[in-house]
Amino acid sequence: MRIALIAAATLSLAACASTPTPGDSIAPRTMSDIIAASDASEWRALDLESTLVMTLAGGRTVVIELNPVFAPKTTANILAMARENYFDGLAILRVQDNFVTQWGDPNGETDQPKSLGSASAKIPAEFSRDRAVAPFVRLPDRDGFAPEVGFVGGFPVARNRDAAWLAHCYGMVGAGRNNDPDSGPGSELYVVIGHAPRQLDRNITLVGRVVQGMEHLSSLPRGTGPLGFYEQPAQRTAIESVRIAAALPEGGAAGKLEALRTTSASFIAIVEARRNRRDDWYKTPAGHIDLCNVPLPVRVKS
Amino acid sequence: MRIALIAAATLSLAACASTPTPGDSIAPRTMSDIIAASDASEWRALDLESTLVMTLAGGRTVVIELNPVFAPKTTANILAMARENYFDGLAILRVQDNFVTQWGDPNGETDQPKSLGSASAKIPAEFSRDRAVAPFVRLPDRDGFAPEVGFVGGFPVARNRDAAWLAHCYGMVGAGRNNDPDSGPGSELYVVIGHAPRQLDRNITLVGRVVQGMEHLSSLPRGTGPLGFYEQPAQRTAIESVRIAAALPEGGAAGKLEALRTTSASFIAIVEARRNRRDDWYKTPAGHIDLCNVPLPVRVKS
Repeated sequence: MRIALIAAATLSLAACASTPTPGDSIAPRTMSDIIAASDASEWRALDLESTLVMTLAGGRTVVIELNPVFAPKTTANILAMARENYFDGLAILRVQDNFVTQWGDPNGETDQPKSLGSASAKIPAEFSRDRAVAPFVRLPDRDGFAPEVGFVGGFPVARNRDAAWLAHCYGMVGAGRNNDPDSGPGSELYVVIGHAPRQLDRNITLVGRVVQGMEHLSSLPRGTGPLGFYEQPAQRTAIESVRIAAALPEGGAAGKLEALRTTSASFIAIVEARRNRRDDWYKTPAGHIDLCNVPLPVRVKS
Repeated sequence: MRIALIAAATLSLAACASTPTPGDSIAPRTMSDIIAASDASEWRALDLESTLVMTLAGGRTVVIELNPVFAPKTTANILAMARENYFDGLAILRVQDNFVTQWGDPNGETDQPKSLGSASAKIPAEFSRDRAVAPFVRLPDRDGFAPEVGFVGGFPVARNRDAAWLAHCYGMVGAGRNNDPDSGPGSELYVVIGHAPRQLDRNITLVGRVVQGMEHLSSLPRGTGPLGFYEQPAQRTAIESVRIAAALPEGGAAGKLEALRTTSASFIAIVEARRNRRDDWYKTPAGHIDLCNVPLPVRVKS
C-alpha cells in the first residue's frame, strides 16, 4: 500500500490515470474525478497554426504550444523558421539539472551559423505586455514574485499594476538571448526542467509551453560541461524535425490533443482540489497553491 | 554569446564553474565570486555518521545527507537498514516527471517483502517538530505555504507559531508511507525531481537531501505506468549498495565534500546575489527569492 499511496500525492497529470484514493462515504473529488466529470465544452483543441511538433532522434515527439498573445513577434519568427525547416538537424546542446534543457544550432557560436532563412536575427524583446489581457483567471493565492498571478488561455501569468507576463513554470519554453534584450529571435530555445526559475520572468521572452512529451526533454543526460553544456558533440540529442502542426496530416501528434480551458468550472475545481487535498492520505491540507504547482490538463481526444 | 549568457542566468551549482559575467567597472558579485572569496571556516564537513552513499548500477554515486534534528527516529531506522545492507539489491521503482524518483523493495507489495532486519517496520511520524530549533536563519522573503521560511543546518525549513518542518524542495529526500502516518519506516525513499511539491510538507517525513549525484536520480527514464511506476522489472535501475559514509574508507564520496554553512556571511551574500541579480544580463531583478530557489552550495574539499 505504501507505494500506491504516496503515489496518490502526485501533482502530475499521471494522476488522471490513477484510481481514486479510498475515501469515506463522501469521496473527495480528485483531479481525475473532476476530469472524468468534465463537460466536452470545457476542453479546447490546440491552435495547430501556432503549435510545433518536434521530433527528436529515435522518434520521440514533443508538442509545444506557442503563445502569440504574449510573444507575437517571436512566435511569428519561430513559425517562419519551422516553415522553412530551420530546426531540422539541429540538436539539444545543454541540459542543466534543475534548470533548463536548451536546443539550437551547434554552430551557432561559430562564424558559420545555419542561415535563418526568411526569419529575422533580431526581434524586439517581448518580456511583458499591458495587463489588459483577458480573460485573466486570477488565483487568490499569494505569490512572492508578483502582486497577481493566474492564467490566460491555458498559460501561467503574473501581473502588476501596469503589465502582464508569462511565468517561468516547469515546462515553459523561452527564447535564449545574449545581453541585448532584442537578441532572442527564437532560433535557440530552452524549456524549464526544474523548480520554477521565476527570477527569469520579465528578463527573457517566453514563447510557449510543452503540452506533450515533456519527459523526453527532462530526462536527458545532464551535460557535464560548465552550465550543463555537452562536452562532446556525440552526447547531443539530434532534432530530426520541427513542424508546424497545421502542416502535418491531421495535425500530427498535436491534432489528437485537447487542453482544459483555464476559464472552465472544472479547472477551478481542480485548483481547489489541489489547494486543499481531502483524500485520506493528506493530514494537513496546504490551504495554498503555488502558480507553478497548478496542473494544466491536456488529454488525447476521445 | 547567446548560449553563454543565458547560461549566466543559472540557479545551479554549475554556476560555480562559470566565468563571471562581463560587467561594468564595478563587477557584481555572483555566487561563484562569493564562493571564491569565502573563508574556509564558512564550510563544514558532512557528518559521515548520518550520511549515506548510494551506488546505482554502473557505479553512479549519490550522496544523501540525513537529518537527525528533524527526523531522529526515521533517520536512525534508515541507518540501521544501511548498516545491515538492507538496500543492497533493491531498485528504483518509480520516476514520475516533475514529481519524484522513488526506490525500495520491488517485492515490498507482495507477501514476501525483504526483511527489515533489526530495523522497525513502524516508526512514529516526524512531519514537524517544535519551532525552537536553532539557529534558524530566516529569509525575509514571503512564502505562500508558511509564515516563516529559512534554513537550519543547511536544510530548507518552514515554521509557524508552534512548529518547524523541513520543506519539500528539489533534491529533498523523504520516507514513503501509506494512509497511516506512522507507516513510513524509511525502507522506501523518494527524492523531489520537479517543482517543489510543498503540499507534501507536514504530511510525510522528510529525512534528508541529496548533496551529490542528484542528476543520477533526476535524469532517469520516466516510468510509463500509472504514477510513473516502471511497467517492466527490466526498466528499473538496480541499487548496488547503500552504505553509511563513516563505514567507507575516508567516508567514500561523502568524505571529500563540504557544505557552505547556512549561518555564514557568504551564504547570506549568495542569497542576496540571487534575490537581486546585478549582472548585465538581468534587466529586472526579481527582488524576491523562493525558499526552494536558494542554492545550498556543496563542493569538493580543496
